[in-house]
Formats: sequence, structure tokens, C-alpha cells
Amino acid sequence: MELEVYYKFILTFALILLAARVVGEFFERYLKQPAVLGELIAGLIISPFALGGLFFDDSIILNFGTVHDVFGVGEFHVMEVISEIAVIALLFVAGLETDVRSFAKQGITGALVAFGGVILPFLFGFVVTWLIYPDEDISAWLFMGATLTATSIGITVRILMEMGKLQTKEGTTILVGAVIDDIIGIVILSVVISISAVTKVGGDLDMGHVAIDAFRITIIGFAVWFALLIAGLKFHKQISKYVLGPFKRSGTAPIFALIIGFLIAWAVTQFDLHPVVGAYVAGLMFAACAEKEELLEQTRPIMLFLAPFFFCYLGMQVDLADLKAGIWLALILTILAVIGKLVGCYIPARFQGKLSHNSAMIVGLGMVPRGEVGLIIAGAGLLSGAIGGTLFGAAVFVSLATTFVTPTLLKPFLKKHDDEERRLAAGDG
Amino acid sequence: MELEVYYKFILTFALILLAARVVGEFFERYLKQPAVLGELIAGLIISPFALGGLFFDDSIILNFGTVHDVFGVGEFHVMEVISEIAVIALLFVAGLETDVRSFAKQGITGALVAFGGVILPFLFGFVVTWLIYPDEDISAWLFMGATLTATSIGITVRILMEMGKLQTKEGTTILVGAVIDDIIGIVILSVVISISAVTKVGGDLDMGHVAIDAFRITIIGFAVWFALLIAGLKFHKQISKYVLGPFKRSGTAPIFALIIGFLIAWAVTQFDLHPVVGAYVAGLMFAACAEKEELLEQTRPIMLFLAPFFFCYLGMQVDLADLKAGIWLALILTILAVIGKLVGCYIPARFQGKLSHNSAMIVGLGMVPRGEVGLIIAGAGLLSGAIGGTLFGAAVFVSLATTFVTPTLLKPFLKKHDDEERRLAAGDG
Repeated sequence: MELEVYYKFILTFALILLAARVVGEFFERYLKQPAVLGELIAGLIISPFALGGLFFDDSIILNFGTVHDVFGVGEFHVMEVISEIAVIALLFVAGLETDVRSFAKQGITGALVAFGGVILPFLFGFVVTWLIYPDEDISAWLFMGATLTATSIGITVRILMEMGKLQTKEGTTILVGAVIDDIIGIVILSVVISISAVTKVGGDLDMGHVAIDAFRITIIGFAVWFALLIAGLKFHKQISKYVLGPFKRSGTAPIFALIIGFLIAWAVTQFDLHPVVGAYVAGLMFAACAEKEELLEQTRPIMLFLAPFFFCYLGMQVDLADLKAGIWLALILTILAVIGKLVGCYIPARFQGKLSHNSAMIVGLGMVPRGEVGLIIAGAGLLSGAIGGTLFGAAVFVSLATTFVTPTLLKPFLKKHDDEERRLAAGDG
Repeated sequence: MELEVYYKFILTFALILLAARVVGEFFERYLKQPAVLGELIAGLIISPFALGGLFFDDSIILNFGTVHDVFGVGEFHVMEVISEIAVIALLFVAGLETDVRSFAKQGITGALVAFGGVILPFLFGFVVTWLIYPDEDISAWLFMGATLTATSIGITVRILMEMGKLQTKEGTTILVGAVIDDIIGIVILSVVISISAVTKVGGDLDMGHVAIDAFRITIIGFAVWFALLIAGLKFHKQISKYVLGPFKRSGTAPIFALIIGFLIAWAVTQFDLHPVVGAYVAGLMFAACAEKEELLEQTRPIMLFLAPFFFCYLGMQVDLADLKAGIWLALILTILAVIGKLVGCYIPARFQGKLSHNSAMIVGLGMVPRGEVGLIIAGAGLLSGAIGGTLFGAAVFVSLATTFVTPTLLKPFLKKHDDEERRLAAGDG
């Protein structure tokens, strides 16, 4: 009976959410770790490559088992679709929670943090892969460099949210940095893809053309971002009145705002940006409105319901067997990924942003998780043939490992930050 | 780039939600009609069979345009998946909103009104479809009968609320009747689905077997329903403590309750019941808990976000050309749907419930709107292949038309009811 497959999907959906919530709660309560890590671990556990293979039947595994083919042209994966909806809702709410006015102030430091956090990891990734795999093509080294540049806004935001640090100066700097990073990451991805396309057919590399393309994407990315930020800051009264106003009487203004968030998430993809960038800036735009709290109240439950799906599904995509082959590269890259981001982001935060040593460490470590953006870049590399299964496995490992270590690394600095704030508050009183 | 297809999905998803919300709001505010009607109409408008065909490009249409092919064995339709999630969330919240305790008291009259309102419309729907479409399968006739049995709780409640009649004896009777009707409708749906599964594979229809099967599903349906209702009424303290308790500190108890709702929705499918029965009774179970209001506060936004997708997508599946082909059936069924409910509910309300003629008319007419439950049944029929586009169009038409006519038909009786009450009050004074 064909309804069976839908029923199985309901089960799969419910089990993913259940596993994510239960393991997430366990991590939060007993291990004092962010729920998001528990959600990722839940994904590893119920992955079809692990336990999931034992107790789900074939047709369910089929629904998530085609992970490595997901990037094949024309494939359309239902789990991926729900993940996509989830991550857009997450980033919209993250934008909505941001204090836009202080966000605007942190612009320059955030930008420098982002650039610093891109340059070092890119060099590390490129050089180390070249040293360990000298027989690979230049495009393979470029791709591995590129996968190290990204910062996962989603994971960073969740960790900051759960630790109650989203509203701090450090939190805002990290967020600005992560958003700009995303734009830079997408630019690098586009550049690397065009380079590898040329080298693959054995043609001459027209660096002028590549540079123009990179410039175009950069300009558009920042333009979209500034346009929505300024729309929110300057026209928030008009947005309240003409966009949210008509839906206030029925109490659906927050739902309508979220729908606009989805539309903007799509719109930015037309300029080669990733949808999460659009979702985030859409949230930012509404964050300047007087209705901010009401919007949050109604959209946060939607995010709380869907976001764990995204993280759990991310964990489910890891094939432990693939990781084994490139484990040395993976470990070295992970260490360098942490050091690269930390140093690259610490320097501008400390010296341009004039943050304390402790705060600059929080910013540097907060930028460490690679998460989904690293996976997207690695997937594109695999698809274009620039990297093989081993390098892909290593890239996936780096994305996950950097995410796993972040909360642990951050904790002492956040604790010290709390102490500093308490001392400051006591001094004021 | 292969991500394109996901980006297009985001656009599709956002446009459906946007259209549903805007037209829904318009209906509510300017036409003084329930928003759900607007959402359906929005679907009709943006359907690939109508305007959607003009301004969406091919690959988007592909995402919803394959509506009639979706139902081929093994096909798995992403829009259907999201609809499924949406309708489960909707029914869970509907169950959660029910006042379980007063619900339990008003049992007998409500049950008789419900049964009366099921028998006549079912017979009318079955016989008329059989007479007009004698070449169709028996499962098609059964489905058309089934679509006429349901009463929309949501629409009925909204109409009663707007007219200030929710707390009257008539209002309570209608409400209890509508709720029981829903369960009967869902049981009928399950029976019809299993019958159509047998006839579709070309098996002989053994009516004795069908009767036993129907009996089995009825028993299981009511057993599951009573079990969860009683679990809620008797063990609500334990549910609060052991099911919701562990998630209270992180504020995710409502999310966890909804996840349990999804699991129960799946579980009942293992007894041949439709997932919405499970979702509804899961909601009922939690409705008895002390946390009811908190649960509603956090799950209602999820429902408000997703449910319009369900109704709009239903509207999108109507091909106006198909509707034209079945217009006579649609008109006849609409008239019979009104007469069937009116007579079937009037008799028990007047003679068992001892209501006045005017009050029994109010009960009968209040049960007329088919709304979402009729659509759920029709959608399941289309999905299972039991009914085709023409019959589906007619079923949607009946759901829409019965909902449209109800307020107009009710008005004179409600006015007379007000006059009676005033006379009574004057006599008392």
C-alpha cells in the first residue's frame, strides 16, 4: 500500500526528533553540554551507517541512506528538504534574537574577525593537504582549504543561545563574523569551483575572469545584507504598519514574518548566496521592529521543533568507515582548523575591536565550528570530482570535530566572562 | 548547480504559505468567513492547473505538478510529506484544545447527534455517487460517502464563537457531536482505505470479511481513543511528572508532547487507523494535564505555521477542469450533505435531547460544515487512488460549499433563539 511509505516517513521523522530531544536533553542536563551536541550524537547513533541500519527497515534507510548521492544533479532528498526548512527557521529566529542596533556597531570588528578567520584556515588546509597528498590536483588542495574557512552560523548560534551569550558584545561579534564568513565562504566556493572546472578540462586558467566573478558575488552579498539591515533600522515603523499590521488582528503577524523570512532566504540564492544568509538578515530586519518580542514568542516554538532535526540529520550523514581512511589528515586538519580560526579571529578582536584577552578568546573559539557550511563545500568538491571519498571523509570529520570541541573549549572562558561581569556589577553597586 | 532544486523548493514552500496566509486573512477580515476557506481558495488560485501554471517555471511545477502521478506505488512526494506533518500538528492541537472533562459529561445526546449526522450523509453520498458514476469502483462510492460524514470542529467552533453561542446547550451539543463525528469519520476512513486496498489489487470483495474488518477497526479505533482519553483523565499527574517532567527545565515539554503526538500518529497506523486519529487522541490525552495551557501556547504556533500549507496544498490539487466535469455531482451532494446532516442531527437533538424545534434546527445546521475533516478524507482517497480528480473535485466543492452556506442558514434560527431568550428573561423579570 502506497500510504505505507508516508507512514514510515512519519515514524522516521518522529524518531529523529525523539532521539534528538532525548539525547539533547541528556547532554544539557547531565553532561552540561549544549543540546545541539546531543542532537549530533543522536544522529551518529541512529545513522543508517550505525544503529539505524539495525532497526530501521530498508525503505526507511533508503530515505536517508542515499546521503553521498544527494549531491548528484537532479536528486531531491526529502530529509534534506526538511533540514533546509529547519535551518532557515533557526537562522531567522537567530536574526530576530539579535540586538540589531549593537549589531550595526560591531560591523567593522566582525568583518575583520571574519577575514582573519578565513585567511589562516584556508592557508593551513591548502598547505597540509598539499604536503600529505602531493599527487592530488591543485583543485583538491583548494577545496580542502575552502572547507576550513566556513563558520557554521547554525551551530555557533545554538551554542551561544543555549549559553545565554547571544546578546553580549562577544556574541554579536561572532555572529557578524559568522555571517560575513558565510558570504566569504560562498565566494571562495564559487571561485574554487570555477578554477577546478577549468583545470579539469585542462584549459588555461583566466585569473582575471575568476577575480571578476569573485568580486561580483562579494559585492552582491554585502549589498543584500546591508540593504535588509538598513531596511530594518530605518523603516521598522513602516514594516510594523504595512507588513505586520494587516496580520495583527488574527494574531498571525509572527507567522507572516517567518514566511517573509523564507522568501528572503530564497531571494538571496538568486545572487549565489546561501539561503541561511537571507534567513538571518530577514530576522535581523524584523528584530528592529517594536513587535520583536511577540514575533519571537510565536516563531521560537517552530524553531525549537524543527532545528533538532537539522542537527540530528547532520550526524546521520557520517559514515564511520569513510572517516577511517583519512584519519591522520582529519586529525591534523582539525587541530589546524581550531588554531587557524582562533588566531585569525583573536587578533582583530583583540587589537581592532579592543576586546579583553578573555573576550577575544571567546570570539576566536566561537568561530571554530564548521558544521553545515563545511559540509556543503566538501559536498560540492566531491561532486565536481576535485576531491575523492577520503578527502571528503576528512572534511566531514573536521566539520563535526570542530563542532564537538567548541563547547568544551569555550566553557572556561565563558565562566571567566560571567565572573568578570559579576565583579563589574558588584563594583557598580 | 544542484542546490538549485532545493532553492526552488524553498520558494515553492514560501509561496504556498504566503498565498494561504494572505487570502486566509482576506477571507477572515473582509468576507467574514473562516480563514481555512481562504487557504483553500488560495490553493485553487496558485494551483499549477490555474495561475500557478503561468508564473512558476517548469521545475517548480514538477514539484507539485505531478499530483496525479504521485500516487503511483513507490513515489514519494515531498509536498505530501509536509502536508502530512502539517495535518498531524493540526489534529494534535485540536485535541489539545478540547475540554476533555465537559466533553465526557455531554456524551449521550452528542453521540446520538453524531451518529444521526453520519448515517444519512453517508448513505446519500454512497448512493448518489453510485447512481451517477456506476462504473467507478465500490471504494470510490464509499469514499464519497465518507467525505460527507465528517463535521469540521474548527469551523463549527469558529462560527459558534463569532455568534456568541459556544456556551449554550445547543453549542455544547454541537461541539460534542462534532468531536465524536470526527472519530467516526476517521474510523470510516480507515475502513474505506482497507476496503479500497483489497479491491485495488483485484481481490474479491468478501463483504463478510469487510464487515469483520470494519468491526475490528471500529473496536480498535474506539479502544485507542478511550485508552488515551482515560490515560489522560486518570493518569494526567503521572503524564505530567514522567512524560513532560524531564523536559520542563529546558522548556521543551510542549515540543516533546508534540513528538509523542507524532509517534502515536504513526502507532495507530499499525492498527489500520489514519495517523490523524492518533494525533487527535494524543492531543486529547495531554489536554487533561495541568500543563495544557503551556502546551497549547508552544504548539499552536507550529500548527499556525504549517496547517495553512495543508489546506492550500489541498486546494492546489483541485483541477478546475475536473471540477467542471463533476459539477452536477458536486451540486447534488452539497444539497444532500446539508439535508442529511440537518435531518440526521435534528431527530436525536429534538427527541432524545428534548430541545425545542428552533434549538434542534440550530444543532442540525451547526453540524453542516465539512471543512478540514472532509478534506482530509477526500485527500486520503485521492492519495490511495480510490477516487480520481473528478470525484476529488466534487468532494472539495462539498466541503467548501457546506462551510460557506452555514452562517447564512443559521442566522434566522439564531435570531429567533435570541428572541426566545429575551422573552424568557423578560418573563422571569
